[in-house]
Amino acid sequence: MSNQLHINTEERLEQLANTIESGSLYQLQRMINAMHPAEIAHLLESSPPSRRRLLWELVDPENEGEVLIELGDEVRASLVDEMETGDVLEAVKGLDIDDMADFLQSLPDKLTEETLEGMNRQQRRRVEQVLAYDEDTAAGMMDTEVITIRTNVPVDVVLRYLRLQDELPSHTDNLFVIDKYEKYLGILPIIKLLTSQPDDRVEDIMNTDHPAIPADMSSTEVASLFEDRNLISAPVVDNDGKLIGRITVDDVLDVIRDESEHSMMSMAGLNEEEDLFAPVGSSVKRRALWLGTNLLTAFLAAWVIDQFSTTIESAIALAVLMGIVPSMGGIAGSQTLTLVIRGLALGQIGKGNTTSLLFKEVMLGFINGLIWAVVVFGISTIAFHDTSIGIVIALAMLLNLLIAPLTGVLLPILLRKLNIDPALAGSVILTTVTDIVGYTAVLGLATLLLPYIRSLLG
Amino acid sequence: MSNQLHINTEERLEQLANTIESGSLYQLQRMINAMHPAEIAHLLESSPPSRRRLLWELVDPENEGEVLIELGDEVRASLVDEMETGDVLEAVKGLDIDDMADFLQSLPDKLTEETLEGMNRQQRRRVEQVLAYDEDTAAGMMDTEVITIRTNVPVDVVLRYLRLQDELPSHTDNLFVIDKYEKYLGILPIIKLLTSQPDDRVEDIMNTDHPAIPADMSSTEVASLFEDRNLISAPVVDNDGKLIGRITVDDVLDVIRDESEHSMMSMAGLNEEEDLFAPVGSSVKRRALWLGTNLLTAFLAAWVIDQFSTTIESAIALAVLMGIVPSMGGIAGSQTLTLVIRGLALGQIGKGNTTSLLFKEVMLGFINGLIWAVVVFGISTIAFHDTSIGIVIALAMLLNLLIAPLTGVLLPILLRKLNIDPALAGSVILTTVTDIVGYTAVLGLATLLLPYIRSLLG
Repeated sequence: MSNQLHINTEERLEQLANTIESGSLYQLQRMINAMHPAEIAHLLESSPPSRRRLLWELVDPENEGEVLIELGDEVRASLVDEMETGDVLEAVKGLDIDDMADFLQSLPDKLTEETLEGMNRQQRRRVEQVLAYDEDTAAGMMDTEVITIRTNVPVDVVLRYLRLQDELPSHTDNLFVIDKYEKYLGILPIIKLLTSQPDDRVEDIMNTDHPAIPADMSSTEVASLFEDRNLISAPVVDNDGKLIGRITVDDVLDVIRDESEHSMMSMAGLNEEEDLFAPVGSSVKRRALWLGTNLLTAFLAAWVIDQFSTTIESAIALAVLMGIVPSMGGIAGSQTLTLVIRGLALGQIGKGNTTSLLFKEVMLGFINGLIWAVVVFGISTIAFHDTSIGIVIALAMLLNLLIAPLTGVLLPILLRKLNIDPALAGSVILTTVTDIVGYTAVLGLATLLLPYIRSLLG
Repeated sequence: MSNQLHINTEERLEQLANTIESGSLYQLQRMINAMHPAEIAHLLESSPPSRRRLLWELVDPENEGEVLIELGDEVRASLVDEMETGDVLEAVKGLDIDDMADFLQSLPDKLTEETLEGMNRQQRRRVEQVLAYDEDTAAGMMDTEVITIRTNVPVDVVLRYLRLQDELPSHTDNLFVIDKYEKYLGILPIIKLLTSQPDDRVEDIMNTDHPAIPADMSSTEVASLFEDRNLISAPVVDNDGKLIGRITVDDVLDVIRDESEHSMMSMAGLNEEEDLFAPVGSSVKRRALWLGTNLLTAFLAAWVIDQFSTTIESAIALAVLMGIVPSMGGIAGSQTLTLVIRGLALGQIGKGNTTSLLFKEVMLGFINGLIWAVVVFGISTIAFHDTSIGIVIALAMLLNLLIAPLTGVLLPILLRKLNIDPALAGSVILTTVTDIVGYTAVLGLATLLLPYIRSLLG
């Protein structure tokens, strides 16, 4: 690791492409292994499969574990798939317990077992302890390497004990104070150790209001706790208040990154771990499912239109202009949906404020509906020389711009109650609603009103 | 701040609603001021305007600064708007320099100046130093309170110096080593201080390979550096290598959260700082702009359809089924677009791999196009009894599912080159392309092929 700052991946990619072209394998190998594991991981993720395999073979075996840990699940699985079990074992040996657990969770069961069997007893016990918990809970994120101390020890003894350690676990900003039953009592900030007198006792200088995280707290809540309280590390306790591990801020960074990406990717029917260069075979299946679902929606809309084919035949301008209504509904609905999905993810929406939110969004829809209804009426009349259809389209759009925010607020809340991910299912269902309401409104209104309006307009 | 863990905001909202209903203002005030500032901020963000104002008035003046800092820009501005200048000054007084700079940046210029004038000289100089830099750079994120030491000092002197400090700046995991010209030389981890001998000199135990961040590095790059290297704090240096401040991981958390949300919100034409309960007036303007842009697209599509009205008149089933083609193109294109926007944000896409990505995505489009073309043909024939139009729709869809991923890959890359945010402009332009290509393909093919196919089918 050099003092030189990592340059950004794009420049790195270009440098790499040049090195590959120049044909010097030795130079390539030197270049890769001078990089930080996280940078190697970025590079692998940014490389198409064939180049990725070549690069991976050039990575020093001693770096393999650190690189694997930094990779997205999908890319990691594709590389591990082609490794010998022995090499996998070798690669994970030096990892932190929480990283090791993460890694093992992404392996096929057989490989997980083989890897566990290859570990020494203490390591295995520790990893299994973390594996026993759900990945998305505090305990599933925690590291079990923790420095603990007792209340009645004086500062100079603590200092002497620390000097005996080869190296402290990374991100050790606090020592954890426990009683004889391993119950968590508080923290002793390292900084406090520096500014205390040698004969001060731990109990006199410890901090008892540092939050302890229950083992089953969800990783989302852990992340917001770290964000809110600006924590670097926090103790994890079991139901009896016994200290079982600690969570550090670097793991929280990952949770925040994953969470925010999850919503965005899910709304397009993608997985947040999706490999940019996933093999076509596995991608086709996922994408096909999403397209197929949307095709159903499209055919449903077609069926609605079909019910009104006589109306369309009598006024072909309807065929030209009717698409505007569902399209605007879809856009307006997606805005509300996105806002609500984010609000739900941040825990900002609950019983106490749904009504206010609904009122605000529908109000917005109404005002925008009025504005654009007038515009639509104007353009239809001037550009398409059809006043009567302009009236119908304008009315239908106003209606759809009321239904869209209503759906955008209520649908994700309902889906969450049903334990369905609103980010994944929300946009498809919303578009189905706005399409069907949109087409039904414009064609239904046309069927009802056109003869009447036309007779009025003479 | 109590040892009791913060409960999640949803439960809090309900509790709050109950307390408000019960009518005890005193109880409400006690409940609020027992909360952590970040929790109060969550609560304010989750409250409709009228309730928000009430709650804000109940917040202890000494907590106001910390709460304001935790709020999104929009909510913060709405509260500050109604405060007296003197109160604003009082509120920010106790904040860290970087928080203060953040806060001042979100105020109107006049208020910023008044607040700066109210500060003491040293504080003002420090804040102005940070304000001089762009908010989205390393220097704009940094804190200027840094503990520095020189190389030739022995450990026991450093320890004595630290004991003299009332309190060390938060997140102090390292001391920064500088020379007599204030040039950054390396770090001295606090932990190292604990495990060293009293007469060890700083130069012998300091770490010289800790990255120093140039003042003009973008906040995105700072964030990925922290993520990659698992940093808690890092020094910021100017062009001459002089130490000018430090960045801590808590600020990086905010950048990561904002960044990921930025893409998702922008894709729906929303601002990531958007207040869930923004007043209808200001929301209408923003939403109207987005809807208006999309209305243009919809009318463009209508114009395309209008060019083929004779064809539609001769085969009304076209009006029923034609919408399927642009709809599927839009969905497929959005998937590619989302993947590429994320890839660009993570720096995974560059010259070296665009071709591979393009090939993979178009290949996916082709395979999916084939699959769904067959299905569309089948359904059109069976459900809508129209083989000839089934052929036309299937062909048009295959074509659109090739154009969609092509646009999804190239468009965001092009937009980025033009310095236009792909997340904001990408989806509108993409839909315009897939709509126009879709309708032109289905109606153009129908005009060209229908007479021919029909004569063939007899």
